[in-house]
Parts: sequence; C-alpha cells; structure tokens
Amino acid sequence: MSFIEKCRRAANARNSLVCVGLDPDPERLPAHLNGTVDPISAFLKEVVSATCDLVCAYKPNFGFFGALGAAGWRSLEDVLSAIPDTTPVVLDFKANDIGNSARRYAQMAYDALGADAVTVNPLMGWDAVAPFLEYPDGCAFLLCLTSNPGSTDFQRLTTRDGPFYQQVARKAVEWSDSGPCGLVVGAAHARELATVRRIAPELPFLVPGVGAQMGDPGDVIRYGSDRNGGGLLVNTSRSVLYASPGRDFANAARREAESLRAELERERAAASSP
Amino acid sequence: MSFIEKCRRAANARNSLVCVGLDPDPERLPAHLNGTVDPISAFLKEVVSATCDLVCAYKPNFGFFGALGAAGWRSLEDVLSAIPDTTPVVLDFKANDIGNSARRYAQMAYDALGADAVTVNPLMGWDAVAPFLEYPDGCAFLLCLTSNPGSTDFQRLTTRDGPFYQQVARKAVEWSDSGPCGLVVGAAHARELATVRRIAPELPFLVPGVGAQMGDPGDVIRYGSDRNGGGLLVNTSRSVLYASPGRDFANAARREAESLRAELERERAAASSP
Repeated sequence: MSFIEKCRRAANARNSLVCVGLDPDPERLPAHLNGTVDPISAFLKEVVSATCDLVCAYKPNFGFFGALGAAGWRSLEDVLSAIPDTTPVVLDFKANDIGNSARRYAQMAYDALGADAVTVNPLMGWDAVAPFLEYPDGCAFLLCLTSNPGSTDFQRLTTRDGPFYQQVARKAVEWSDSGPCGLVVGAAHARELATVRRIAPELPFLVPGVGAQMGDPGDVIRYGSDRNGGGLLVNTSRSVLYASPGRDFANAARREAESLRAELERERAAASSP
Repeated sequence: MSFIEKCRRAANARNSLVCVGLDPDPERLPAHLNGTVDPISAFLKEVVSATCDLVCAYKPNFGFFGALGAAGWRSLEDVLSAIPDTTPVVLDFKANDIGNSARRYAQMAYDALGADAVTVNPLMGWDAVAPFLEYPDGCAFLLCLTSNPGSTDFQRLTTRDGPFYQQVARKAVEWSDSGPCGLVVGAAHARELATVRRIAPELPFLVPGVGAQMGDPGDVIRYGSDRNGGGLLVNTSRSVLYASPGRDFANAARREAESLRAELERERAAASSP
C-alpha cells in the first residue's frame, strides 16, 4: 500500500494527524532502562506500543541512531520492526546527493530500512530528488521552510521569483508529476505555512515544531490543511518521548500524544464548522 | 592533529592534491571477490593499500554504505580502520538538520566513525552548521556549487546579493571564525570556481568532478588554488575505483590515481612558474 494511502487510513481510523518523532537521546532515557541490552530500543518500543493507536505516522530521525554507531543502526532496525504495518514510517534523514549517489540514499531508506517515506534536502536540485520519486509507494518530503533560527540564512533569501522556500514549493509541485512528494514546513511560521499551502494545494505537509518547539496547533490546522481538512502530519518528538523521566514514561507519552491529538481534532472541527 | 594540518602534510609528503572517493557499487566489483566474506571492504581495502602513498585524503560516501544496511555500516568501519592514520578521511554524507539534531550527525561522523572532516548541507543555516564547527580538529565542507545538472534549480538562483551559491561562500567565510570549514565546488564550473576562490581566499575547497565527471584538472588548479597554490582536495571516485573490472583492479586504480596526481602537479608547476 502506498504511503499516502497508509497514512490516510491511519489518520481516519484514529482521528489523528499526530506524527511522533523518534529521536532517542541516551542522556534522557529513564534510569531504570540502563543495564538492559539495548536501552534505546527498549525505550522506543514501549513508546510505540503506548501510542500506536493514536498516531498517523512515526518519524525516526536517523542522526540520533547514527550517532550511536553500529549499535544505533541495530536499535533503529529493532524499533522499526516493532512498528505495526498499519502505521507508516517517515525516515527523517534530510539526505541528498547528486543523482548517482542520491539513489543510494533512496535505497537505504526504502530497501535497507523499509521506510514508507523519507525527508529529502532539495538543495542539489532535480537529479538529486528524482531517485526518491522512483518509489511510487513512497513519499519524498522536501525541506521547504524549517523552524530553526538559521532558516533566515538561506531559506528566506529573496530571489527574483520570491523567497527561496517558495521556489522549493513550486518545484515540489512540478516534480510531484514524476512521483509522490511532500513538503516539510515548520509549525512556527503560520503565515508562511498559508503561503506554501496556496502554492502546493495538494501536497502532504510534514509539520514539525509543535510541542517542545512551541508551534501553535490551531495555526497549523487553519493555515496548513488542504481543502479536505487533511494533508498534514503534525510532528512532535521531545514533548512525547520525554513526558516523564520515570518508570511511567510510556503512559506519560501516551497522555501527551492523546492531548495533541485532541487539540488538533478540536481545531479541525472548529475549522470545518460553517 | 587537525584535519587541515594532516591534509597539508599528506599533500606535501606525497606531492598530491588527489582525494579518492570510496563509493562502492556492488554491481561493479571484480567478479573474483564475490564469495569473500565482505567483498566491499575487501575491494576498498585493496584500493586503499594500492593508492595510500599517492593521495592527500579519502572520501567515503556514506550513501553507498548505508544502502547496504547494517552490513554496509560494518564494511565502512572496516575500510576506515584500514586507512593509515597519516591520511585524513572526509566523510561525505552531506547531512544536516536543525541545531539539536545536527549535533547527532557531527557525533556520527567524528565520534562514531572517527572521520577527520565531513561534508555538510548548509540549507538550514547557522545553527545547523554550528555543531560541526565545534570540532577544532575537524573541517565542515559546506556544499556551495555541485557539478550536477540540478545545480541550476536552487544553487544558481539569483538573490538580492548575487547567486545563491555565492551567499553560501560568504557565510562559510563568516562562520569559519567559529571553527574550521571549507567549501564543495564542482570541477565542471571553472568560472564559478574562480569567483568562489575570490570570495573565500583562505578556505579549503573539496572539488569533485574530475575523472568520470569530466572536469578539467588544469582549470581546477588555475581557478581553485589558494595563493600558496594549494587549498584543494581534488576528488575522483569512479575513474580510480573501476579502472579495471578484473583481478588487476588495484594496480589499475593506482595507475589512475598516479596519472591524476601527475597531471595536477604539472598544472601546479605551470601555474607557479613566472
């Protein structure tokens, strides 16, 4: 089943636009997990088990696993194997390279790790993105406007055709004729989210930055939804993963995910009422 | 020892600006290696052994290893352990993420894999690059202008302050006050190489695209050298790795690396003669 369809079904069945980011920080794991064979995967598997009926997707960030070397790679595989097949996985590695080498990153994500979708850095242009579009059941989320302070350095540069990030959105629309793609737009930028939605009315948006990064869920729904009130994966990572530092971390994670889900559903209901 | 010093010493001792890219393609390995425990690492270790007195650095491309899953990670570690400590390693993974997560990629490169330098995608701006600059003995090569056709899509967009890639070069100069950084500039763009060198007279340049990608070594020396006739790592990958498909692949790789080294040295001599 394609990522888009899998994601739509999960979102509908669970009334949820929540995507939980899996960014394991060894220094923030509950103390009682130290001493287990693989604390990272033990931790994340409990989080997945406690939240998987509440989310439309998971988004493991490769850097957090890669930083731990070969052991991190094994942890990632272990966690991925514990995610139910009904819940799609977006591998967040913001990778890219020129054509010949970009293909390897697509193979890494889709073939080696079995992800359903990936995040892709578009800077190198068409031939660097094209290999990711050759997976008709996948989805390449191109970085459009991230929510960090440094997004002003390049992403907001004024080009002859408007801000740089809007050019990325236009190219994504054009390239989506060749294969499934979406856009990453930070939740902190409500006005820009609306602009990008106008440019790309039909593309799925991955919206990080609610929760620990303080984006407003109401703004995300109002300005980011497509005409059907969907087309969004609203990501939160730290606020769910580290909701409690103790033995109750999985229940606390569930409460946080539930709370974001409810808030997003309230906003969706408000936005769709006449 | 810092990357810059290690690279300078290797370049001086070996009269070489040649960097060999380690991009293992399982379909292009010599047939007689099939059946060995780890054909990838067996292949690359022979290439390293045959060329390490001729090069100033090696540049493994992470995608080619990541595409092979956990086994690829092990091959990469195995190859890295076979590179003599006198020869610096640039991990080419063009990674990045916003600050908190970018730190994980820096840890992956420097701590988990023991690289001496890394390639970094600058799109997310200052806080995404800063974690890589916290390694005073490393070097972050920011993608400035790549040699692929897609480089026109975004890297050459005209901004209020000139072409996008020139802004990257200006930022790299500014950011190099905080830690060692360099630029990736494709060999195919001789004129732009000269422009970037004017903007960043003192930064090291990683210049891919000679060999299989047809950049001219003479242009690279003329337009890319710093005022001391150096500051360059001239990368070639496929033309060396796949110089012969047979049992003589290592000797053939050596001949190719030797030939590029000699051509670059001739051009350096010509450029420095009065």
